[in-house]
Amino acid sequence: MNGAIVAVGSELLLGDVVNSNAAWLGKQLAAAGIDVVASTMVADDIDRLTGVIHAHLAEADVLILCGGLGPTVDDLTRDAVAQACQAPLQRHTALEDVLRAKFAAYQVEMPENVLQQADVPTGAEALDNPAGTAPGLWLEYAGKVVVALPGPPHELHATSAPVWPRLAERSGTRVTTRQVLVAGLGESAVAERVESVVDLPDGVALSYLAGGAVVRVRFTTTGDPAPLAAIIAAVDQELGPLVWGHDDDTLDGVVHRLLANRGQTVGVAESLTGGLLAARLTERPGSSATFRGGLVVYATELKHALAGVPEAVLDQHGAVSEQTALVLAEGARTRLGADWGIGVTGVAGPDEQEGHPVGTVFMAVAGPAGHQVLARRLPGDRERIRLWTVTSALDLLRRTLQGQEV
Amino acid sequence: MNGAIVAVGSELLLGDVVNSNAAWLGKQLAAAGIDVVASTMVADDIDRLTGVIHAHLAEADVLILCGGLGPTVDDLTRDAVAQACQAPLQRHTALEDVLRAKFAAYQVEMPENVLQQADVPTGAEALDNPAGTAPGLWLEYAGKVVVALPGPPHELHATSAPVWPRLAERSGTRVTTRQVLVAGLGESAVAERVESVVDLPDGVALSYLAGGAVVRVRFTTTGDPAPLAAIIAAVDQELGPLVWGHDDDTLDGVVHRLLANRGQTVGVAESLTGGLLAARLTERPGSSATFRGGLVVYATELKHALAGVPEAVLDQHGAVSEQTALVLAEGARTRLGADWGIGVTGVAGPDEQEGHPVGTVFMAVAGPAGHQVLARRLPGDRERIRLWTVTSALDLLRRTLQGQEV
Repeated sequence: MNGAIVAVGSELLLGDVVNSNAAWLGKQLAAAGIDVVASTMVADDIDRLTGVIHAHLAEADVLILCGGLGPTVDDLTRDAVAQACQAPLQRHTALEDVLRAKFAAYQVEMPENVLQQADVPTGAEALDNPAGTAPGLWLEYAGKVVVALPGPPHELHATSAPVWPRLAERSGTRVTTRQVLVAGLGESAVAERVESVVDLPDGVALSYLAGGAVVRVRFTTTGDPAPLAAIIAAVDQELGPLVWGHDDDTLDGVVHRLLANRGQTVGVAESLTGGLLAARLTERPGSSATFRGGLVVYATELKHALAGVPEAVLDQHGAVSEQTALVLAEGARTRLGADWGIGVTGVAGPDEQEGHPVGTVFMAVAGPAGHQVLARRLPGDRERIRLWTVTSALDLLRRTLQGQEV
Repeated sequence: MNGAIVAVGSELLLGDVVNSNAAWLGKQLAAAGIDVVASTMVADDIDRLTGVIHAHLAEADVLILCGGLGPTVDDLTRDAVAQACQAPLQRHTALEDVLRAKFAAYQVEMPENVLQQADVPTGAEALDNPAGTAPGLWLEYAGKVVVALPGPPHELHATSAPVWPRLAERSGTRVTTRQVLVAGLGESAVAERVESVVDLPDGVALSYLAGGAVVRVRFTTTGDPAPLAAIIAAVDQELGPLVWGHDDDTLDGVVHRLLANRGQTVGVAESLTGGLLAARLTERPGSSATFRGGLVVYATELKHALAGVPEAVLDQHGAVSEQTALVLAEGARTRLGADWGIGVTGVAGPDEQEGHPVGTVFMAVAGPAGHQVLARRLPGDRERIRLWTVTSALDLLRRTLQGQEV
């Protein structure tokens, strides 16, 4: 089955809003066994919107529209679906009651135009929106499925929950995806090593996805998933300590789990990443169980005053050095009362520092059983260097917690 | 003139990568006076790619392709442009030399397949890529312009720099956009106040863009830009202290400028934002001139040990309180040796804390001339609460630096 995604809103074409919904919808459709062949953004314009629906229904069995279901004159998705699928809008009084009850519960007066959200194309089914007011729509037309969903991401996710199992059943395709998650090695080197041990059976697809210092090795099949287990095991064995997780794991989640299993904690002292490392470690709910705190030692003298880096180390080796990274890690550990400390220093750019070129980064981990230091020369601009440093530093802690030397 | 954007890559349709390039390209085209009528993602498939180029050239005068210019078998944009525009590829030996020189400068051995990046459709012009190897392409075909650009964002930005002035000249449309940037008030309240003082002249469009605790009030015209000055002045006067900047200003940039003008610095002590506030203040190059450092006091006892919050304050008022926010700001100031301190504490969720509901946030600024505290109850999920807190705390410092009471 083929699928198409249409994100509705002039702000997407003007570039005021990034179309992150399309990526989320693409993942859901792929998991439901539907091959996404087109993903488009379209302005709040009834003719263009109707035209795009027509064009996509020519090649797609499932069309997902996202956005344009609100109550204002700019919200045209309901009208466009009605027009394109020859299913005139009908007012549903039961939906009107739902809308009135939602506003009553919010204790907010309901503007009269909200009631147009109770208009439903003839023959369509309304999908409850547990996170907002605009219901979604499910319409079958000429053997195809047209689904319209609200644009705000938390409303999109909540309203579409019942859609994916229905589409998966309809596609009749069971997609199995397994991923091996790797850090510390480039995409082509990972590919070379994977392909030296994997003899891909018919019907299993292999792809690589590199980004943010991580390479995802992905195996997908719509057939029997049984062969995947042996393939994953072979890749795990070949890549060994470079493998930090599988499937939907996140690196901060893996580190959190490793620490939580031991009842241990971590603290960080960071320079070029300016708080991003701490922010990553506090992204997920429950992070306070393993994260103590952080020192953002941006000014050089704070490395001494705040994190306890001896002035002799700074004078002799410089703020950007292995030695400073190591003492920062020790300082984070002791000053933050954590079992483990991570220290990070380097040059994010755009200018070189202490004679070190942009991208020079030193990371260290200190813990109950000693320490490890890693030097890296990272490519890219300031933003990329900061992000890669965060990932590399987390992976250094992961490897150290797993007893691996780097 | 109409424009179309095509982002190339199967990873976009599968949702593995968010199509942020389309938003960036949309902004550049709009600024060059080109009306973006379509923005599409297409898989690494020569037939689909060629088909999309054909389809878009039917309605667009300018087609921008992005991605698929690399050296692997998945990179098909060059071939598709050559095929769709009947301009067979020709190897340019001068470009081969450029590629060899780049690899020599990186001190990396050049894989032979890199040289296919020296293939150029007949009649096309190669655009130098200062940030990578794959050159861009500019091709005129049947009175239209087809531009192909590399996909990695920093390469896209660098390679496309000469494209926008050429397109602006071609469109002959001068688009003037002015923005008033507002914090601390919702979109509809901002709109009501703006529309109470602005009588929009013919040919000037007004729009609102809300996101991340900021509302952008935007005026756009393709005609005489003279009337915009008086409009902006009227909006500034009506919204007064709620206006933190104009046009392309960023809130961290405005705070940096206000501090730099006085030769002053800031330090932060943050809890629920976990490092994000410090990270925002270190995003831009040159931030070390005004940013000293940060304390991420996630564990409650670190608020005392690290930032000097008296235990009596924690016992009596709790970690989530105005009083704690204020002493955190004072602690940031003194412990980090900064002129100004920002303190932030609150509940990011998903669970309530000390009886305070999720979204309860206290922010404080302390400086040479006293302090200010702000309490907020923010809506949304953990990620949104953390981001809004960062923006609100920066704006509190901005207002304090400008001598405004909140």
